[in-house]
Amino acid sequence: MRTALVIGTGLIGTSAALALAARGVTVYLADHDPEQARTAAALGAGTDTEPEGPVDLVIVAAPPAYVATALADAMRRGLGRGYLDVASVKGGPRRELEALGLEASLLSKYIGTHPMSGREKSGPLAATGDLFEGRPWVLTPTRETDTEVLNLALELVSHCRAVPVVMDADAHDRAVALVSHMPHLVSSMVAARLEHAEEAAVRLCGQGIRDVTRIAASDPRMWIDILSANPGPVADLLSEVATDLDETVRALRALQSSDEAKRREGTDGVENVLRRGNAGQVRVPGKHGTAPQVYEIVAVLIDDQPGQLARIFADAGKAGVNIEDVRIEHATGQQAGLVQLTVEPTAATVLTAALRERGWAIRQ
Amino acid sequence: MRTALVIGTGLIGTSAALALAARGVTVYLADHDPEQARTAAALGAGTDTEPEGPVDLVIVAAPPAYVATALADAMRRGLGRGYLDVASVKGGPRRELEALGLEASLLSKYIGTHPMSGREKSGPLAATGDLFEGRPWVLTPTRETDTEVLNLALELVSHCRAVPVVMDADAHDRAVALVSHMPHLVSSMVAARLEHAEEAAVRLCGQGIRDVTRIAASDPRMWIDILSANPGPVADLLSEVATDLDETVRALRALQSSDEAKRREGTDGVENVLRRGNAGQVRVPGKHGTAPQVYEIVAVLIDDQPGQLARIFADAGKAGVNIEDVRIEHATGQQAGLVQLTVEPTAATVLTAALRERGWAIRQ
Repeated sequence: MRTALVIGTGLIGTSAALALAARGVTVYLADHDPEQARTAAALGAGTDTEPEGPVDLVIVAAPPAYVATALADAMRRGLGRGYLDVASVKGGPRRELEALGLEASLLSKYIGTHPMSGREKSGPLAATGDLFEGRPWVLTPTRETDTEVLNLALELVSHCRAVPVVMDADAHDRAVALVSHMPHLVSSMVAARLEHAEEAAVRLCGQGIRDVTRIAASDPRMWIDILSANPGPVADLLSEVATDLDETVRALRALQSSDEAKRREGTDGVENVLRRGNAGQVRVPGKHGTAPQVYEIVAVLIDDQPGQLARIFADAGKAGVNIEDVRIEHATGQQAGLVQLTVEPTAATVLTAALRERGWAIRQ
Repeated sequence: MRTALVIGTGLIGTSAALALAARGVTVYLADHDPEQARTAAALGAGTDTEPEGPVDLVIVAAPPAYVATALADAMRRGLGRGYLDVASVKGGPRRELEALGLEASLLSKYIGTHPMSGREKSGPLAATGDLFEGRPWVLTPTRETDTEVLNLALELVSHCRAVPVVMDADAHDRAVALVSHMPHLVSSMVAARLEHAEEAAVRLCGQGIRDVTRIAASDPRMWIDILSANPGPVADLLSEVATDLDETVRALRALQSSDEAKRREGTDGVENVLRRGNAGQVRVPGKHGTAPQVYEIVAVLIDDQPGQLARIFADAGKAGVNIEDVRIEHATGQQAGLVQLTVEPTAATVLTAALRERGWAIRQ
């Protein structure tokens, strides 16, 4: 790919443009707000002038509501050899394009894609060429999609150092509902229980509820747009959760019964949901996209002075141990904290010995 | 307190004994399995001989099912001046003691307590004197509780360097249902959706669902015991979540409607749960037990070589910046990762400059 046109120079569009420009692609930048395009150009993402002729790839990174019309307009004007969008839901844009009466010969030049890497901030100033590095970038070609267009999309993904994942558009929408949209709403519902809770109760919060509710802090407006574009699959999954919920409530009520047999049923019901939770949790990919291998945790007590973590990691480094993950568990109302270092089992003993030797308090 | 008797030398009992012994308290250890008591004694938690006379404090750390009988037995034999248990649910033991017909003069010597610090491992060998350090330790005195007994309990808590929190027993049970038991079951239900999900979908999992489902990995048997002891409050909370869930499903279905007004209702419904989630999430205590202050995140790209974290933290230390929290976000199928350093706003610019200067790739 030698030339590209990015329509919509927000966070995603500008980040893709920066990655392409860094790889020597000539990038043209357009936005309904010329100021945005000028900003992106100033950041080195390309030029906000008009391309003389058709570019290799047109990337539509407009807000969800404008994607289909922006695509149809660009395709009818023949601005490129291939066209793609980066909207977070994929069934909609394609259906809208068809509804706009685009002929098959043009539709074959379009591929719907979704880079799985958002962030809190938005706009061109938040953009960065490495935004997509190592993240999945879903491509949703159909039987009609030109191979040339698929290859242009794959080239974009590799320039952005993302990991291409080919899926059917509707399968993608169900997948993001499963791994992102449904968990987000459930996290909000757990957090909502705390809104009017007594202070004394809230004081007892630990790392568990902290993790479960972390994503509930996100911006509602952004999530309303996301969820509005994918209501069906999300509602289906929430209904499944509702079924589990009702059965679990029934099981817990049975546990309050004086009847032995009923209590037994209750125990089985609770055990069932806990075991299915185990079975699902192990499928969440570990750091390297594989099923999580068994790691061991070495827990080190620290106080809250600067440099403590530095010393721990330096000591781990000296011992030649690679830290797979870190969690700092801070104690309620205290300066003291616990650093949990996740390492491969073979490394755990080495690390424990090395840190002990250097005077760290290790919790077995 | 000069003498204590620990009945039940598992993780909690032995850890408390280790803390007391370290503070010069003479600790007597007893367990229905003498081997366990011998092990605890061998770890320096005290002696597994019988006390000659009444001790200052009797700590019953037996499994939930045996707590009340063990307490009643110890109290009738007059083994101590004060008695407490450490079971994770507090309404039950007191009611069982009353059901066992213990006279008021004896009941006034008992206080129900709950140290909020479990861990994955169990048994005396997993015990450590700092297990309770900085964690909340709930005390549930009644109007009848002797002040002397409350003070003995407070002395134990301070010897264990825990943070005493006084609550009504039933308020405690509702609180742990809210901050621990209910979130645990909901996490299991989200994780359960992944059990039979397509591999392609599971590949799209990110940090969000990873956090929401982390606690779903816990041991079901342990959790059946915990939930069986507190079914009522947990069921009540799950029913509240179920109500939110049904309303949210209705709202999402409305978003699929062709009727403008209905879609508007849908948006309002979704926004409502998201905003209430925001309001609840901000109440989750931050690292120092306060409402979380606003922190800033400095994100640094790393590859997966040993020592990289060491260098980052060393560089942060040189800049005099105190890292409040760390999250390593690893990229699916990639060695590359993103280290998110949480720091106070004033420190963010200092840290960014310092790391840039030392050649780190900072994501703005």
